[in-house]
Amino acid sequence: MLNLQSKTPDRWLEQVLPHLDLLLIDHAHCERKAAGVAMNLLSTYVDNHELCGEMVRIVCEELEHFEMVRALLRQRQVHFRRLRPGDYGRRLNAFVNRTEPQRAVDRLLIAGLIEARSCERFCLLRDQLEDKDLADFYGSLFESEARHHAIYVRLAKGYATDEEVEARLAVLASEEAQIVSTGHPLPRMHS
Amino acid sequence: MLNLQSKTPDRWLEQVLPHLDLLLIDHAHCERKAAGVAMNLLSTYVDNHELCGEMVRIVCEELEHFEMVRALLRQRQVHFRRLRPGDYGRRLNAFVNRTEPQRAVDRLLIAGLIEARSCERFCLLRDQLEDKDLADFYGSLFESEARHHAIYVRLAKGYATDEEVEARLAVLASEEAQIVSTGHPLPRMHS
Repeated sequence: MLNLQSKTPDRWLEQVLPHLDLLLIDHAHCERKAAGVAMNLLSTYVDNHELCGEMVRIVCEELEHFEMVRALLRQRQVHFRRLRPGDYGRRLNAFVNRTEPQRAVDRLLIAGLIEARSCERFCLLRDQLEDKDLADFYGSLFESEARHHAIYVRLAKGYATDEEVEARLAVLASEEAQIVSTGHPLPRMHS
Repeated sequence: MLNLQSKTPDRWLEQVLPHLDLLLIDHAHCERKAAGVAMNLLSTYVDNHELCGEMVRIVCEELEHFEMVRALLRQRQVHFRRLRPGDYGRRLNAFVNRTEPQRAVDRLLIAGLIEARSCERFCLLRDQLEDKDLADFYGSLFESEARHHAIYVRLAKGYATDEEVEARLAVLASEEAQIVSTGHPLPRMHS
């Protein structure tokens, strides 16, 4: 699915379902961080006209989702707060090449893989949550994450040939699958 | 005007009017950087509910303006590119206290002062530009900069008493006026 090389293991749902409030708080942080990633890409590659336009749209969509999750938290009387993050993002970002233009390719592909994994997990939550409202909410976010994934992969192709991007995507997706298979003890969206 | 302690000196218009293309490119960068400032404040003070909501709105408005300036640049066939920045932001940010909650007050008030100075200069451009379309454009941006200024000052009052915030605003506004009176040799929005 969306270039991912593994399905989320069953242990993830077992890990997060008893902690839905924490999962929602972490989800709000994920949306905020996704907006930050797009903003940083915009600042670094500001002379790429197409990238700028797409990053502006992604920042605003992620922040719109951030506000939707915050509204859900208030509805459930859950206080939104700082949360110790898992190590998924940090471990993935360790694969970013330090030299341009490979760095641009890596940053865009990793942003795209994170969107793909979120998308896959939102699907799982849509199908498995007993809370119908929350299940519908995750169903409604699915499409934009898939679209963001495709945008990031397309933009990476502005910095290398299609073949190079696809080869690198396979390598990074394999590392991502490895990180997911190790997992993380905290109940988080990307544990 | 808007807590500023000085008017823009005449030399600024003389400095930027012969370089409108450069001013527009710098303006696009200012909008992008203003969005980045709001995003950073959101990340740091994420447990402040009101601040989060306001920062989300400001990020998206600044990015909308960024896109408007980029569209203007394309219309004028000016290539949007990196530009060596002036030193206005750097000099202002040197006054940020390292200790919370004073740090929050300073970051919010400095963001507010930058909005106020932009607002004042947009007024000048609206009144002085011979290019009617560009004058109208600056007139249309005026209101949102003034509103952002008021939001930042109000949010600062969440981290100190009204009297403390007003006293600190007077100090920072005086430093800002000093920076503006020194000026900067590059033709920039905040030179």
